[in-house]
Amino acid sequence: MPIKTGKQYIERIDQQNINIWYKGKRISGPLSLHPAFKGLMQTQAALYDMQWDKRFINLMTYTSPDTGDPVGLSYLPPANAADLVKRRNMMELWSKQHHGFLGRSPDYMNTAIMSLYTAADLLEEHNPLYADNLRKYYAYCRENDITLSHAFIQPYASNLSGQIDSTEESIAAKVVEMNDEGMIISGAFLMATQGATCEEILVFPSPSPAYFEDINPFAFACAVPNNLPGMTFICRESYGALSSFDHPLSSRYEEMDTLVIFDHVLVPKDRIFCYGDESYSRRLFKESHFHTHIAHQIITRYIAKIEFLLGLYQSLAKEQDVEEQTQTALNTSKMMTYLEIFKALRLSSETEAVHDRSGYLVPASGPLLASSILFPQIYPEIIEMITILGSSGLIMIPSQHDFTSDSGPYLHQFLRGEHSEARNRVALFRLAWELGASAFGGRQTQFERFFFGNAHTTALRMINNCNNTEQFKTMIRDFITSNDPSPH
Amino acid sequence: MPIKTGKQYIERIDQQNINIWYKGKRISGPLSLHPAFKGLMQTQAALYDMQWDKRFINLMTYTSPDTGDPVGLSYLPPANAADLVKRRNMMELWSKQHHGFLGRSPDYMNTAIMSLYTAADLLEEHNPLYADNLRKYYAYCRENDITLSHAFIQPYASNLSGQIDSTEESIAAKVVEMNDEGMIISGAFLMATQGATCEEILVFPSPSPAYFEDINPFAFACAVPNNLPGMTFICRESYGALSSFDHPLSSRYEEMDTLVIFDHVLVPKDRIFCYGDESYSRRLFKESHFHTHIAHQIITRYIAKIEFLLGLYQSLAKEQDVEEQTQTALNTSKMMTYLEIFKALRLSSETEAVHDRSGYLVPASGPLLASSILFPQIYPEIIEMITILGSSGLIMIPSQHDFTSDSGPYLHQFLRGEHSEARNRVALFRLAWELGASAFGGRQTQFERFFFGNAHTTALRMINNCNNTEQFKTMIRDFITSNDPSPH
Amino acid sequence: MPIKTGKQYIERIDQQNINIWYKGKRISGPLSLHPAFKGLMQTQAALYDMQWDKRFINLMTYTSPDTGDPVGLSYLPPANAADLVKRRNMMELWSKQHHGFLGRSPDYMNTAIMSLYTAADLLEEHNPLYADNLRKYYAYCRENDITLSHAFIQPYASNLSGQIDSTEESIAAKVVEMNDEGMIISGAFLMATQGATCEEILVFPSPSPAYFEDINPFAFACAVPNNLPGMTFICRESYGALSSFDHPLSSRYEEMDTLVIFDHVLVPKDRIFCYGDESYSRRLFKESHFHTHIAHQIITRYIAKIEFLLGLYQSLAKEQDVEEQTQTALNTSKMMTYLEIFKALRLSSETEAVHDRSGYLVPASGPLLASSILFPQIYPEIIEMITILGSSGLIMIPSQHDFTSDSGPYLHQFLRGEHSEARNRVALFRLAWELGASAFGGRQTQFERFFFGNAHTTALRMINNCNNTEQFKTMIRDFITSNDPSPH
Amino acid sequence: MPIKTGKQYIERIDQQNINIWYKGKRISGPLSLHPAFKGLMQTQAALYDMQWDKRFINLMTYTSPDTGDPVGLSYLPPANAADLVKRRNMMELWSKQHHGFLGRSPDYMNTAIMSLYTAADLLEEHNPLYADNLRKYYAYCRENDITLSHAFIQPYASNLSGQIDSTEESIAAKVVEMNDEGMIISGAFLMATQGATCEEILVFPSPSPAYFEDINPFAFACAVPNNLPGMTFICRESYGALSSFDHPLSSRYEEMDTLVIFDHVLVPKDRIFCYGDESYSRRLFKESHFHTHIAHQIITRYIAKIEFLLGLYQSLAKEQDVEEQTQTALNTSKMMTYLEIFKALRLSSETEAVHDRSGYLVPASGPLLASSILFPQIYPEIIEMITILGSSGLIMIPSQHDFTSDSGPYLHQFLRGEHSEARNRVALFRLAWELGASAFGGRQTQFERFFFGNAHTTALRMINNCNNTEQFKTMIRDFITSNDPSPH
Repeated sequence: MPIKTGKQYIERIDQQNINIWYKGKRISGPLSLHPAFKGLMQTQAALYDMQWDKRFINLMTYTSPDTGDPVGLSYLPPANAADLVKRRNMMELWSKQHHGFLGRSPDYMNTAIMSLYTAADLLEEHNPLYADNLRKYYAYCRENDITLSHAFIQPYASNLSGQIDSTEESIAAKVVEMNDEGMIISGAFLMATQGATCEEILVFPSPSPAYFEDINPFAFACAVPNNLPGMTFICRESYGALSSFDHPLSSRYEEMDTLVIFDHVLVPKDRIFCYGDESYSRRLFKESHFHTHIAHQIITRYIAKIEFLLGLYQSLAKEQDVEEQTQTALNTSKMMTYLEIFKALRLSSETEAVHDRSGYLVPASGPLLASSILFPQIYPEIIEMITILGSSGLIMIPSQHDFTSDSGPYLHQFLRGEHSEARNRVALFRLAWELGASAFGGRQTQFERFFFGNAHTTALRMINNCNNTEQFKTMIRDFITSNDPSPH
Repeated sequence: MPIKTGKQYIERIDQQNINIWYKGKRISGPLSLHPAFKGLMQTQAALYDMQWDKRFINLMTYTSPDTGDPVGLSYLPPANAADLVKRRNMMELWSKQHHGFLGRSPDYMNTAIMSLYTAADLLEEHNPLYADNLRKYYAYCRENDITLSHAFIQPYASNLSGQIDSTEESIAAKVVEMNDEGMIISGAFLMATQGATCEEILVFPSPSPAYFEDINPFAFACAVPNNLPGMTFICRESYGALSSFDHPLSSRYEEMDTLVIFDHVLVPKDRIFCYGDESYSRRLFKESHFHTHIAHQIITRYIAKIEFLLGLYQSLAKEQDVEEQTQTALNTSKMMTYLEIFKALRLSSETEAVHDRSGYLVPASGPLLASSILFPQIYPEIIEMITILGSSGLIMIPSQHDFTSDSGPYLHQFLRGEHSEARNRVALFRLAWELGASAFGGRQTQFERFFFGNAHTTALRMINNCNNTEQFKTMIRDFITSNDPSPH
Repeated sequence: MPIKTGKQYIERIDQQNINIWYKGKRISGPLSLHPAFKGLMQTQAALYDMQWDKRFINLMTYTSPDTGDPVGLSYLPPANAADLVKRRNMMELWSKQHHGFLGRSPDYMNTAIMSLYTAADLLEEHNPLYADNLRKYYAYCRENDITLSHAFIQPYASNLSGQIDSTEESIAAKVVEMNDEGMIISGAFLMATQGATCEEILVFPSPSPAYFEDINPFAFACAVPNNLPGMTFICRESYGALSSFDHPLSSRYEEMDTLVIFDHVLVPKDRIFCYGDESYSRRLFKESHFHTHIAHQIITRYIAKIEFLLGLYQSLAKEQDVEEQTQTALNTSKMMTYLEIFKALRLSSETEAVHDRSGYLVPASGPLLASSILFPQIYPEIIEMITILGSSGLIMIPSQHDFTSDSGPYLHQFLRGEHSEARNRVALFRLAWELGASAFGGRQTQFERFFFGNAHTTALRMINNCNNTEQFKTMIRDFITSNDPSPH
Repeated sequence: MPIKTGKQYIERIDQQNINIWYKGKRISGPLSLHPAFKGLMQTQAALYDMQWDKRFINLMTYTSPDTGDPVGLSYLPPANAADLVKRRNMMELWSKQHHGFLGRSPDYMNTAIMSLYTAADLLEEHNPLYADNLRKYYAYCRENDITLSHAFIQPYASNLSGQIDSTEESIAAKVVEMNDEGMIISGAFLMATQGATCEEILVFPSPSPAYFEDINPFAFACAVPNNLPGMTFICRESYGALSSFDHPLSSRYEEMDTLVIFDHVLVPKDRIFCYGDESYSRRLFKESHFHTHIAHQIITRYIAKIEFLLGLYQSLAKEQDVEEQTQTALNTSKMMTYLEIFKALRLSSETEAVHDRSGYLVPASGPLLASSILFPQIYPEIIEMITILGSSGLIMIPSQHDFTSDSGPYLHQFLRGEHSEARNRVALFRLAWELGASAFGGRQTQFERFFFGNAHTTALRMINNCNNTEQFKTMIRDFITSNDPSPH
């Protein structure tokens, strides 16, 4: 089965009829009609439709080695430089479409499952069945264009239950039983973004607690469809709205976050990728270059987002006739500088890519780690530039229906700009407002800030990745112990 | 008539039945029952009730010189140091009640009208009737405990209509006719915060455009009840909600901003304070020490808000067991430092207060200007500290009804903290979320950032207020031209 | 004996003939003629002369309770609010004279020894002789106007020698013998600022290592003249120069830092203040409110320094005709804001002073701790503002003799400003250069940054001083658990 | 004549016997023996010697098209990608040798003259002789390995003389006479860095004032040897010293800045590149891609410098045993991030290079402009990290001779580190001190901050270079005017 259409995407999600709760009530009808999901699902559907679009199909798909069908390019394990470029071009098409606002654009998880697949060999030694499971699952996703999400992070309380607490009552996610049909798991995961608008979910406690006995029940990895018995999704409040005038971003890009609970869920045995040995779950991540592969997708998203923010900043400056002010120039050039930086980091990751031991080409990690440290710092900085430029224009903004009401003529008269009609001027400020001062914008900022973990986590990842630390220290030691003021 | 009760406050607002529009529809019922106003009006009512509370009445009122009734202390024109302290103590009671979240706590506008009153003499020379109007209006507000708002800032488009454009079609607010009954005005004002939940509105175009003829139609000041014919209020989208669990701040403190439109509104002649001469409207502001008097109220609000934010930061740190981390200590001590600073600035403004030419005691302007420059910088900084500390805990947060639903037990089990129940832990994160990542929080940040104007405006105000600039430059000149390395 | 003159100051220092090393050579002649000390000693002498100046003597001295002589006001233990004001006014006179550049202006150590004196009672219980020693030493300093320095901080290596290492070879400073004449100490101390240009030195290992036996040889406190046998002073490189045109600051204010080594130095028994019990040395600091008393002196110095920096910034802006630029206004107003803040904090520390248990009036610690956290942050920020404003004008600056050389006419022609002669213009940039880009300036920045310890140390001091932490956390708990959206 | 040796470099400079003044005295002996120049000249000589070193000669030279001699690779006008890589590798060799501290490493000016050469065609239309002069001068520099500096920036006072002031007395540099032998120029230039330790100087008033008559005397460009009659060099104070222990950086890298005065200097006619028409001087810069070509050299210097700073930071952290602290990790990873960024920007500039109209390959300007905006921001930030990490260790540091003096044993005992001898420990802190708190370090920071002009200048350069501004604004307009919440 080839790439899917937007219509198929919506149908499959609607048919799953998962156990999902919103503000204390179980959602009964199709998700695609529910206000909390409707806009996002239309956006997502349009992304899938692009794959079938004649203008894009050759850029966005490749021929399945198994079936000959066109399948999504983000599933392609890169074997050479040309593959990396193809992947990037494909991801750029989607990113420019959603302007970088979708953290779970399908290419993100497609890339994730592709990266795990490239390290399947590692599991042979753990359990050949698991290696086989992983390879087959990857092919299944690719051939069926499965929309995936993932569940990694456990609630705070899971840290509180000690490692020896493997009883039923423990809070950390664990395997409670292994039987002929599969494994039964219990536990909860925070922050499955788009958990409800995906078909399947990759489950992967990270980190798993260490354990003192032979088989660590906390160490496992698997993938499941969202509607297995025992699974519950609990939503946060939706920040979306339906009017694209009033809420230009959330009406399109509101990705719901869900808490996913597993209560004695039976995971079919062909869906198990790891079990019982923490070292394999850890190594699977590391040796698949998981972070590096997804960072190549994410930096493409970052670039599209910076372009959008730069366009918005310049539009706001023009609307308010402050383009010539020093501060505007400083900020504009700063954003242009960031854009150059992220493009250069992406290029560098591709140009200096290295082959892994299985022969796949992995983008260089250094430049991508740099991007994952830099973006969480500059994103809030840019948003602040925009809100400061927008000033009180972000506070008093009427909404769509005000323009067509009986008091609308007042708005048309009083809220126009120098060269703009009131409606367009207000639409521009609403966009700045939604980005810089709404709940949708607040969640975006928080999401970008912590995408790769907190600042300390990403710092250690960078430091551990750097090979020439000792070399630099040696250089200094040589420098200070040289008696000769001339070069050495 | 003495201070009013909360019940009276609500009744008076509901009875006004003003011409107000929300999302394109005219609001028909009582505002106090409308979701966009209900919580705020209850909060405001509780503030008024405090004045009658036996514990507070002596701290919050004084005896009217006209009627002998207890009237609000924020109406008291300070004559001596003890008056300033009384005023501050009163304002502190209200501030601690609303934790600094109400920009239009009644003492704000009470102080504003009081300050204008202290400069009424200035208007004698302009027009003795206007001086008399202002004095009587002040007494009317004080005796009736009138809830006021103000309308100063005109839409951007008003700058575009040239100064000579005094025709009917001009956009800048102006007097279109002066007759026996009063003056007829047209124009629009942005950002009357709590415009709809007040009884009256002080109208004061600032700045008024200069004008080349004798009588400048753009220069005027007046006060009107909110329900005069020709007045229209247009609301922004409400960021409030009714659940104090889900929306602990906006359920209490959501102050609606309104666009106020005057379409040939007849202002009764006893409500005119200035007309036709831009110099008087400008001087009235300046010589009443308007900014200084209100800044004394505002700094009291700032202090209450910093205390609340400090408490929240420490609570979040404790909940997550990171109190001992270096970054937590640095941030905590920084907030404590800010608290000391604002308290010291307030004390300094009182201790170094000076008498104006009418004998009223005006707080020292320097320390208050410092507070108005500093707070817009530190408020976003503190909010960022809180959101970073809250981390992904601000993203995936369930709501009130989830706890009582059938899936509630999962939440109680998985979302508890080390020493806290899940419900309280989530409530704490919801508070941090609403402050740092919601639309209510976004509007608060923007409001605080621009309360006194943008950074350049407040900078110039400070520089113009500083008298010893030349003295410092002279000190440097003497220093560098002294040949003697020993002191001079 | 009363306050001393500048001449006496210089004579006493010169006569000490201490064992002091500069760049590997023992200094033989009088320090007051040595280029590394000459300018500073003249500056210091001028400070002492001010005390005898008719204009100042009543403001700078009080009558000794023992002798009736005029003695320095900074020795006065404050008993009431008037004393604090007198002290502040006196310290302000000196601070304005040295523009805040002297970290060891005499009032600093005078205040230090005064503060220890106020806690002498504490030592009664430790050893009545030590209490007596401290009181007599304080009186000796006051009556003889002794110029003091202090030695607290031990070299890094002292941390490496374990606590049980009390042998001769240990690196941490310790008492190696106690005998009838006194105690014999060995050890080294970093950073006795002005160690060589003072008469005596207060020695006080802080913190002392804990120790497992009854008598802790690492715990002691004493004061000694600088020329006891066994004492060695080692200087850093001097950053001073003699031309007040080329080096306007260092020619006056270069305070040499010294490493002080004690090699079996016999401390006379009447100079011992503590010995053998770490708790007393620690408590002496704490219960004398040492940090608070000196912080009152230091904040006065800070204020004088900010005024100088503000004057310089404005002079540079005027010289380059950029006073009207937005960035200039923002920076100028920021510095004015800081000036208001430090003045307000000082006022607050005096207004809210509290009596200690011996009846002395101690300035409020909160505002002073705030100043000690804030200044290390704003000082480098201000210096950066100045260097950025000075731009390349800080790079290519000729020196004094160039103006009088044969090529001098070129300088007069080409380096003049719009309203300034070349010589004065260059002098202004040299001042900015010395502050922002010279070794003297670099050391000042580092000194201010770490005056009270590093950022974590000062943060913990603030947090531990704050009493209402729990109150704020309780406020939050009450807030989130209240069901009522109306105030509580 | 091929590349020169270090010895030849020194001989040529010494033989010039230029008219140079230091602290008001004309320097008489060889510059290479003068303390202000000695260390730098040795460093520079060593760079030249590298070219003859067998290990490097093939990497650092190419065969002269005219003579077949080996000439410096930085003179090579890049024709293709391989040339760019060769140039970069060559520049990297020198940069790593001087660790990025030399702003006037010979490749800088070699690149400058090469870039002007690539645009010589432009001058054909202006004056074919000038085009010929420029080409020949470039060949002369290349073949003789001439050490060049440049003089662009005029003193502030030159702005004060009006454009019509072309008389003898005007301050702006100008051509005072044109005759058969050449042109006679007068004027002064700030900031010829290494002006005295170069053989020739490129003179290029920038910008030249506009002028209302046909021939603009302020518009000219030329190159002259440093010892023409009428040329005077005035030095700033030297920040260098001779001990590589005490002053590890300035003993090697102190590049003197000079004020260069031209007093009726006759420029030989074959050294004139432009005259009389401001448009050609401006276009020569622009169309030679001057900023872009040199930025490719400078970014290579930046990279070497960041590596040095990173090594120093890590060494200081290790020496003080704080490598594991959170702040250390954050700072270390930040510096690693910057390193990745600059390497990526350089790579990007090479990969996306474009051919100019003469067929030369010009590195992409966007990434290089980004580097020129970013480095002035991060360099002071990194220096601050280092000084804060060094803490009071940067204040009390003894010097070389102290270790060998009679008090040396104390230093060896007390100043050692956990794993380091005192001498090496002190050497490390002296390095940090010289970088972060000395006059040499202060000048480096200022130099880096303003290398490409002030922040506003570099911002406008970036904005003007950016072609897709309109495209981004259009994207926003389309976004907000689209009614469809689904993607567009």
